[in-house]
Amino acid sequence: MTQIYQDLPAAVSLVEVGPRDGWQNLAEFIPTATKVQLIDDLIACGFREIEVSSFVNPKAIPQLKDAAAVVAAIKAGPGLLTAALVPNRRGLEPALKAGVGKIVFFISASDTHNRKNLGCQQSETLTEIGMMLRELPANARYRVSISNVFGCPYEKKISFSAVEGLVRELFHRGFREITLCDTLGVATPDQVYRYSYELRQKFPSGDFGLHLHDSCGRALAGVMAGLQAGIKRFDSAAGGLGGCPFAPGAAGNLATEDLLFTLDEMGIETGIDSQKLLACARRQLRITGSGGSHMLSFSGSCNQ
Amino acid sequence: MTQIYQDLPAAVSLVEVGPRDGWQNLAEFIPTATKVQLIDDLIACGFREIEVSSFVNPKAIPQLKDAAAVVAAIKAGPGLLTAALVPNRRGLEPALKAGVGKIVFFISASDTHNRKNLGCQQSETLTEIGMMLRELPANARYRVSISNVFGCPYEKKISFSAVEGLVRELFHRGFREITLCDTLGVATPDQVYRYSYELRQKFPSGDFGLHLHDSCGRALAGVMAGLQAGIKRFDSAAGGLGGCPFAPGAAGNLATEDLLFTLDEMGIETGIDSQKLLACARRQLRITGSGGSHMLSFSGSCNQ
Repeated sequence: MTQIYQDLPAAVSLVEVGPRDGWQNLAEFIPTATKVQLIDDLIACGFREIEVSSFVNPKAIPQLKDAAAVVAAIKAGPGLLTAALVPNRRGLEPALKAGVGKIVFFISASDTHNRKNLGCQQSETLTEIGMMLRELPANARYRVSISNVFGCPYEKKISFSAVEGLVRELFHRGFREITLCDTLGVATPDQVYRYSYELRQKFPSGDFGLHLHDSCGRALAGVMAGLQAGIKRFDSAAGGLGGCPFAPGAAGNLATEDLLFTLDEMGIETGIDSQKLLACARRQLRITGSGGSHMLSFSGSCNQ
Repeated sequence: MTQIYQDLPAAVSLVEVGPRDGWQNLAEFIPTATKVQLIDDLIACGFREIEVSSFVNPKAIPQLKDAAAVVAAIKAGPGLLTAALVPNRRGLEPALKAGVGKIVFFISASDTHNRKNLGCQQSETLTEIGMMLRELPANARYRVSISNVFGCPYEKKISFSAVEGLVRELFHRGFREITLCDTLGVATPDQVYRYSYELRQKFPSGDFGLHLHDSCGRALAGVMAGLQAGIKRFDSAAGGLGGCPFAPGAAGNLATEDLLFTLDEMGIETGIDSQKLLACARRQLRITGSGGSHMLSFSGSCNQ
């Protein structure tokens, strides 16, 4: 029994998703130059992958209408992947043209949410992203994020077999890097463990990551469950911003600073500078007036 | 590996500490009758143990100056223990006279915090509570809570050997029911697991509980780690109120509603009605203007 916290991965990757998932439902438009400055500040923290925007319908998500300009302007060095979401072929060409470093496809584990979020059935999205995958240049980097893996505001609990079936379809189409998203923030830690563990067992060549929201306060517990199941890649958003506009009840992403200080104190390497990141979250809070996290409020000192 | 979330305890005890740890640093005095009504509402949720007040110096903690009146007035039925903190012999007689169902002694794992919180050295507190234990009636119920087990605002990290040594001293004096308190809210989940697991190994006749604060957002992750180490008793406070007035940086207790909904959805029995408890937390927020938790903010529906 004593080994269950000793066998955790020694190092993990944090994917910063704040500029995409955190900002997308802020009512007031953040000027492009401000976005670029905030992203450049995040880059300086040491992230190797940042979701910087989405090439979606600007009427649906007006905040991200400047996706191409943002991607073109940020100072991505050789060690950094600028990732962006692409829902369909209309978004793919401008994303590739803008120089996105990693294309992020997305689909929902719940058909109802898929229709509300992507405007078509899950099966149609599967066909669409399968076609897009074949259109990508040979050296393109890509992954797929599955929304609502652990629960859905419309369909409630999502069974493991439904998730397994969808992952199998994605595997058939060539995906290996797959992020399991708790869009609503309702996953219980035992569920995160079971789904992550079983998927890693059933798809040993898969590279699974977790994207957790903190709506019910369970996101860090979910990260621990993921680590125990061998997951080594986690999404989070500086300042804990976020929430899918088409998933009622969804609250903010797991705050990067809450995740980072915890991993740091546990001796799990991320390559990210936690003090710089906290400063970024503070600056973003000042500029956008949005955000909040445990580490932004914490006035004490940690166990370091 | 798959068993690590399957071997969790099937049922746990929740000790509601809001009326003591949650209210103690609220600036505005809650009238005694209001306190009694709020506690009676908590009793109706199904708790079997509630920390209702502290018999401490009213100058240090003016909010709890009506401890005796509160204990005398609440409708404790046969299935309920009304617990109250007693720091020294001055507090013991009025506590026993008022009819406290369980005396809670307390001491800090950090000598500096012990001096700030209790006004004397740790060794003096050990002597004091040893003497009080001998003065208790034969059928009295009691336990001891150790503050700052996982970290201290003054002494930083508290080593396991320091905690083990203190537990040994408490065992010598006759204590078996011991609550490990993360007063500051800085414990990492792996640390909670290790301390809990090792203490249960070294003191098999001990009955250990956990008291976690959510300052850094890790409280629920700590509960999971405690469950994995076999802990079956957890403190929490409705509405997530709290913070020790003599531990700078300490933020609110783990909110009972955040804990309860998670345990409910994991199928772990508590005997507490989560909807009634959420209504209590809402009422308390209206009356005191204080509090906040994930489940109080959550507008979606859970996986139930």
